[in-house]
Amino acid sequence: MFPQEDFKALGMRGDELVLLDQRLLPSREENFICKSVEDVFYAIKEMVVRGAPAIGGVAAYGVWFAAHDRKNFEQKCDYLKSARPTAVNLAWAVDRVRTVALQSDFDLDEVRKAADTIVAEDIAMNRKMGLIGSEVIRPGATILTHCNTGALATCGWGTALGVIKTAFYQNKNIFVYADETRPRLQGARLTAWELRRANIPSKLIPDSAAATLIRDGKIDLVILGADRIAANGDVANKLGTFALSVICKHYGVPFYSAAPLSTIDFDCPDGSHIPIEERDKSEVTHIEGIAVAPEDMDAYNPSFDVTPHGNITGIITEYGILREPYDVSIAALKEKAAQKA
Amino acid sequence: MFPQEDFKALGMRGDELVLLDQRLLPSREENFICKSVEDVFYAIKEMVVRGAPAIGGVAAYGVWFAAHDRKNFEQKCDYLKSARPTAVNLAWAVDRVRTVALQSDFDLDEVRKAADTIVAEDIAMNRKMGLIGSEVIRPGATILTHCNTGALATCGWGTALGVIKTAFYQNKNIFVYADETRPRLQGARLTAWELRRANIPSKLIPDSAAATLIRDGKIDLVILGADRIAANGDVANKLGTFALSVICKHYGVPFYSAAPLSTIDFDCPDGSHIPIEERDKSEVTHIEGIAVAPEDMDAYNPSFDVTPHGNITGIITEYGILREPYDVSIAALKEKAAQKA
Repeated sequence: MFPQEDFKALGMRGDELVLLDQRLLPSREENFICKSVEDVFYAIKEMVVRGAPAIGGVAAYGVWFAAHDRKNFEQKCDYLKSARPTAVNLAWAVDRVRTVALQSDFDLDEVRKAADTIVAEDIAMNRKMGLIGSEVIRPGATILTHCNTGALATCGWGTALGVIKTAFYQNKNIFVYADETRPRLQGARLTAWELRRANIPSKLIPDSAAATLIRDGKIDLVILGADRIAANGDVANKLGTFALSVICKHYGVPFYSAAPLSTIDFDCPDGSHIPIEERDKSEVTHIEGIAVAPEDMDAYNPSFDVTPHGNITGIITEYGILREPYDVSIAALKEKAAQKA
Repeated sequence: MFPQEDFKALGMRGDELVLLDQRLLPSREENFICKSVEDVFYAIKEMVVRGAPAIGGVAAYGVWFAAHDRKNFEQKCDYLKSARPTAVNLAWAVDRVRTVALQSDFDLDEVRKAADTIVAEDIAMNRKMGLIGSEVIRPGATILTHCNTGALATCGWGTALGVIKTAFYQNKNIFVYADETRPRLQGARLTAWELRRANIPSKLIPDSAAATLIRDGKIDLVILGADRIAANGDVANKLGTFALSVICKHYGVPFYSAAPLSTIDFDCPDGSHIPIEERDKSEVTHIEGIAVAPEDMDAYNPSFDVTPHGNITGIITEYGILREPYDVSIAALKEKAAQKA
């Protein structure tokens, strides 16, 4: 059922963490090598790697690098966590591996194993999520997705794009529209790259083209990811998600978010408490290093937005599909996960 | 009240039509010289000049070039009209100057004067529209606009951006958010350029950032242009307009379109009859000639979308602000314009 991807977004090679440098895709496939916490921080901050679950996996190995320096360990873990503010998986992964380091008295093999486990679990969860989520995709469906939520955004396979790929490999004869996702163009650069590699019938669109397709009944459902989910079901995700959700709600088109349990921030009561990263204005004013706006023009560049739970048809997790009322279904999931742990 | 712009988007110099090449802005300010109908066709088709009223002005001089060749005149006029399909001003301007050519038995001075008149009228109309439209802008307002509707999009001053500039010069202490407007980035390249030249406080945003600003009450009103308005008030305008209108409607934010009478297609019953230009996929897959998507990725690139009249608070024209029911107010405007003519 699940074919081997012909690329790997992240993985250890000896004592080095090897990342596929996502800033260079789709034109160049080059690796970015991390040999220290500082390298890992840079890779997350500068988006060599991005996507909430992938950031979690990379940060886990970052803690392994940090565990080599017992004296500065706590400080380096905090430093790692500060690389990007919105995705909750980053702090989640760092804390999980940190605990192993402390409990094992800095046994580097144990720490490394803990990081390996996060990666292996993420891939397994994504495959499970794929099977669960593909149940909402009827044969012949046309699906719209936003940003990149595939193997590049995770430790393997993907969340929302994993669901879409699962439906494809189940021969559901799907068609995918991929939003280009300004300003970083993850849809154009990364999702299109994954869709082409898997040979999934698809078209790239400017983000603004989605609304008319939705209105005209050309989209059967929207599936996209999440960077942090609040306890009431509000979803912080890549800029553009919220606008799509309003259009879908208005025209009665199902709108799903797919994310593993680690993306849910049970301590966060609602979306208004999620910090939204504002990135440099040059991401808007320059493309590929070329100015597309006057040098003295100011820009506002929020990287994420918050979609209210009322606009979300369902949240696809590895434990099943959560539905309204989300405060209840998310609390029940927390219970269930605690029992399994 | 109306300061002289420090640039000119189009104008005759001797027997040459001089256009500011908008493909090169904001990095380079270079002219594109038209000496023939073919040059004018190219300039419109390849978007050396764009914006419905500017296309009308340029096409008017195109007819003057065509009138030099009596034998192929009709054919060349039809050719000009085929350069771009959505804006109605193109056909309107060509037909108006063509009639003068035929009635004057190809008196080139008369034909040239007819083209000059179209340009002069457009500027006068825009200034009138500016004064009428600025009445909906309260002091201290924050305004969102989309695409470029300024002096570059018209024969001078601008439609929607003309309204905004008028409010600015009336010392209304406004702030402007400009959508970058993918895929051609007219907001980043052209509107930002005009805003900076006029020193209007403003920020550029990715198109997807508008929705959260609107929801959070940070936008007092939206004003943008139109490429063709149907008799029922449906507005075809730059891709992205429709999505904005749904968000504004949802959150009760006023949404205005500003356009001169020549943009109204009285023969077009509703938006479903407006042809929507689909442009080359490379506008989505490449930026500044650099691939931002895999070479073999397909793309869908509609240049415009249609906003239903029910989402539009008002249509600002040089004859006043049209409001619902638009079929009635537009029919009345037609009557009024016919009496003045």
